[in-house]
Amino acid sequence: MSPTDAPISHFHAVIPAGGIGSRLWPLSRAEAPKFLHDLAGTGTSLLRATWERLAPLAGDGRIMVVTGRAHRAAVELQIPELTDNNLVLETEPRDSSAAIGLAAAILERREPGVIIGSFAADHVIRGTRFFNMAVREAVIAAQAGVIATIGIRPTEPAIGFGYIRATQSANIDGASATLTVDEFVEKPTQSLAETYLSSGDYFWNAGMFIAKASVLLDELAATQPEMHAGLMELADAWDTPERGHVVDRVWPGLTKIALDYSVAEPAATKGRLVVVPGEFDWDDVGDFASIAKLHLSGHKTDLAILGEGARVLSDSANGIVVAESGRTIALVGVKDIVVVDTPDALLVTTIAHAQRVKNVVDALRLAGRDDVL
Amino acid sequence: MSPTDAPISHFHAVIPAGGIGSRLWPLSRAEAPKFLHDLAGTGTSLLRATWERLAPLAGDGRIMVVTGRAHRAAVELQIPELTDNNLVLETEPRDSSAAIGLAAAILERREPGVIIGSFAADHVIRGTRFFNMAVREAVIAAQAGVIATIGIRPTEPAIGFGYIRATQSANIDGASATLTVDEFVEKPTQSLAETYLSSGDYFWNAGMFIAKASVLLDELAATQPEMHAGLMELADAWDTPERGHVVDRVWPGLTKIALDYSVAEPAATKGRLVVVPGEFDWDDVGDFASIAKLHLSGHKTDLAILGEGARVLSDSANGIVVAESGRTIALVGVKDIVVVDTPDALLVTTIAHAQRVKNVVDALRLAGRDDVL
Repeated sequence: MSPTDAPISHFHAVIPAGGIGSRLWPLSRAEAPKFLHDLAGTGTSLLRATWERLAPLAGDGRIMVVTGRAHRAAVELQIPELTDNNLVLETEPRDSSAAIGLAAAILERREPGVIIGSFAADHVIRGTRFFNMAVREAVIAAQAGVIATIGIRPTEPAIGFGYIRATQSANIDGASATLTVDEFVEKPTQSLAETYLSSGDYFWNAGMFIAKASVLLDELAATQPEMHAGLMELADAWDTPERGHVVDRVWPGLTKIALDYSVAEPAATKGRLVVVPGEFDWDDVGDFASIAKLHLSGHKTDLAILGEGARVLSDSANGIVVAESGRTIALVGVKDIVVVDTPDALLVTTIAHAQRVKNVVDALRLAGRDDVL
Repeated sequence: MSPTDAPISHFHAVIPAGGIGSRLWPLSRAEAPKFLHDLAGTGTSLLRATWERLAPLAGDGRIMVVTGRAHRAAVELQIPELTDNNLVLETEPRDSSAAIGLAAAILERREPGVIIGSFAADHVIRGTRFFNMAVREAVIAAQAGVIATIGIRPTEPAIGFGYIRATQSANIDGASATLTVDEFVEKPTQSLAETYLSSGDYFWNAGMFIAKASVLLDELAATQPEMHAGLMELADAWDTPERGHVVDRVWPGLTKIALDYSVAEPAATKGRLVVVPGEFDWDDVGDFASIAKLHLSGHKTDLAILGEGARVLSDSANGIVVAESGRTIALVGVKDIVVVDTPDALLVTTIAHAQRVKNVVDALRLAGRDDVL
């Protein structure tokens, strides 16, 4: 094993495995969220693929998973290697600042000076070599005391992602590709996205953050002092018999806020956020249009079929069909179609309307239809 | 009861209840063919609606149903009034000449001089008063010794039906609206259909035939002498203990041919076919586009929902959804869509492609998928 293939010293990975993926209903459910599905068609769940991607970088026993209590069994089934030590169970979802902040606090207490890297459990990445290079460079940047994110070099004017603008080198030794983040930009319009793409100054925000746990906690202390105090209290109790009591008392009161807003954007404003360009394929597979794109890889006139033992007949149809019910499915003359067939719910929409699936979920929630959510 | 409300003397109705309705898969199946479904949304099956339409015209106990042996229980459930005397069970399907011819032969033997009227079990008719008027006029024409059909006055340039051209009065006493049929015309192109509609000389062929049983059998003797002989043999044995043996020997050998070709067209060529204009709404509901039209009645931007207890969420969707599985169905942004959801099979197509559903059935048959046919 060459030095660059060895696990990274003082590095601990964190996988926040939360989020239902409303735009992927009825495939993704409260009971079986997005990260448990094989959306990339690789034969493993997105969570398992994330784990396997990180294991060579972090080393055995140095990947922490933060997930909901309800998903414990499913997560352990996906990752038999996971020890209790590295499994953080949320009693209820409190968003990514609380989830990643708690992991940071626990790990910093166990191993002062540790660098953590947080990677979503439900994204698709292709190009491990470039992913590894980016993580290693991000860790070097983190060692210099900044917060690093990995920004994906855009390959098309996507309007479904947030962007990061970065134009100046961060001047960090050993991290020559790393740039200082100028600003975060919300999902753009089509024309703006085209401008971003052609400028070469923008990256997709993939929500990957690498930093010393202490640096991340310091940022949190500055912007969310109450949350920070709660997380410290939780971390102090975590490896003691008091954990349960403290969790029950503190966790439900933590502010729900994404790490992008509590840490990343404020750090960028202060010039303490850097971006490592990621030259690998990445997708957050946020809706069925993304999944179709992933599986059709450019062949827009084809029909992508997901689902084990799917029985699909197609007559001049294209788009994507997810066959999870075992039923025979016939598609006749439907273009850019999205059909998601599960035992108790069926979705029919089009690639162009894939984002609007969230409206259905909202309507079902409003109607109290928890049975299909 | 006024004289015109009384049952028609010497008249016996026949309902051939056959045909699976391949274009209505997966709703219509071998086990549950089209005529057993409530496609008009009236709360009763098409078969039951046909029976109830004919009962006042033919009178109690004067409606014969010809159907497949496999459908006996379902038919009797729909029509508890049906006696064994009026139920003809086919051991296998042999098309409409054999089915209607056998009914004619049995009824002529029981009641020489009887007039029979054959009406498909799986069409939708609205406008009972005009239907009744047309049948009564057709019976008057039949008494004069011709074969009468009821042709539907076209309301649009439909390309899914066959047409009947008729320009001259048949000069039959008491049947002043009745015309002599010039010719039968196959399903036309769109431009031809428009010509037919504007000419006023064309009617839709609704497959309704009214004639003395003896006249119909004579026509059959001329064009299909072997079939005629077989039907006579069957009729002779029908009300005897020999029925079973003779059916097993004769029925499977009868030529499969539609009554349109064996009787109606040859009779038209000889000037012995007349058409009574039907001024009522009629549809053969041959595909899901027809059903959608029936239920949307002009409101093309709406979504027709069929199925008891259907749970359908629609966000900017229109077309038709048939919900037979009890599952929650969400349609998002799909236009002119056809979704047919049954417990073991799902169809997704569009109004424009509704006719092509037959291809799916053919493909399934070829693949030996009898489980879903």
